[in-house]
Amino acid sequence: MLAALPLPAPLSTRAGDVVLRAADDGDLDALIGLLADDEASASRGDVASPEDRALYADALAEIQRDPANAALVAEAPDGIVATMQLTRIPGMSRRGATRLLVEAVRVRSDRRSGGIGSALMRWVADDAAPALGASLVQLTSDARRVDAHRFYERLGFTPSHVGFKRAVRL
Amino acid sequence: MLAALPLPAPLSTRAGDVVLRAADDGDLDALIGLLADDEASASRGDVASPEDRALYADALAEIQRDPANAALVAEAPDGIVATMQLTRIPGMSRRGATRLLVEAVRVRSDRRSGGIGSALMRWVADDAAPALGASLVQLTSDARRVDAHRFYERLGFTPSHVGFKRAVRL
Repeated sequence: MLAALPLPAPLSTRAGDVVLRAADDGDLDALIGLLADDEASASRGDVASPEDRALYADALAEIQRDPANAALVAEAPDGIVATMQLTRIPGMSRRGATRLLVEAVRVRSDRRSGGIGSALMRWVADDAAPALGASLVQLTSDARRVDAHRFYERLGFTPSHVGFKRAVRL
Repeated sequence: MLAALPLPAPLSTRAGDVVLRAADDGDLDALIGLLADDEASASRGDVASPEDRALYADALAEIQRDPANAALVAEAPDGIVATMQLTRIPGMSRRGATRLLVEAVRVRSDRRSGGIGSALMRWVADDAAPALGASLVQLTSDARRVDAHRFYERLGFTPSHVGFKRAVRL
């Protein structure tokens, strides 16, 4: 867990108030559900299969133990409505800039377009990054997510890079 | 430092043999030089200005202390000819996949197109990622680096994502 994050954080959105906090073990099934509730994730194997639950539990435990990572959830009165992962990365380039990487941003399908994603990303840029000494926020978004790209550009992100991935057989 | 990396690693390239190893304090000026010896980096402020040396030294020290990060250098008989940074990132998505992020790949200008970059990236995928339990290698490349994009595609990387960045004022 990234100890310096200013959490829990109450956030107001058009879709109602949520509290952003670190994910705990009780959030595991909600997190698995959020991943499966997303077309691109599901196409990559995140289909909430019961036999995968132990893999997700191990991953969540590892993120919780890691001082450079945080798995966050946004909780509304009716449950977990969004998640994202943050990673703090020290670096040499850009004059020794520390980066904050955002991964796996997911909003529950019945709450999309309600401002929750915007509230999360504004909190990342305005609160989380400064608290962690990060002068650059970066993320990659699947090329298929055209609506998400417009969303990030509206929030001040520049699509300056191409994101490459290569699977490795373990 | 990522302790599980199989280093030092001797690599053979068309441009001669190099040894890949963790960067140490004595490599600081070579690393600053490699960043400045790159048009895109220089355009973002990496110009090897003497007053920035302390920023780079702090960044290198932080990477060295960090158990999830490694700053690597490729050393040839005539000095340091390449660098890259690796970050191991546990994650929930892709069925709890751990990722290996590659940042700041730089080859000295007089050694480019000699196979050093290919040797580094093959080592990342074939040796580093398995040693770290990472089933996905990812990186972003500045949209202006068209030659680099062809290079990564030849090495089996898929340009599936758009990389967004946003500067944060600290």
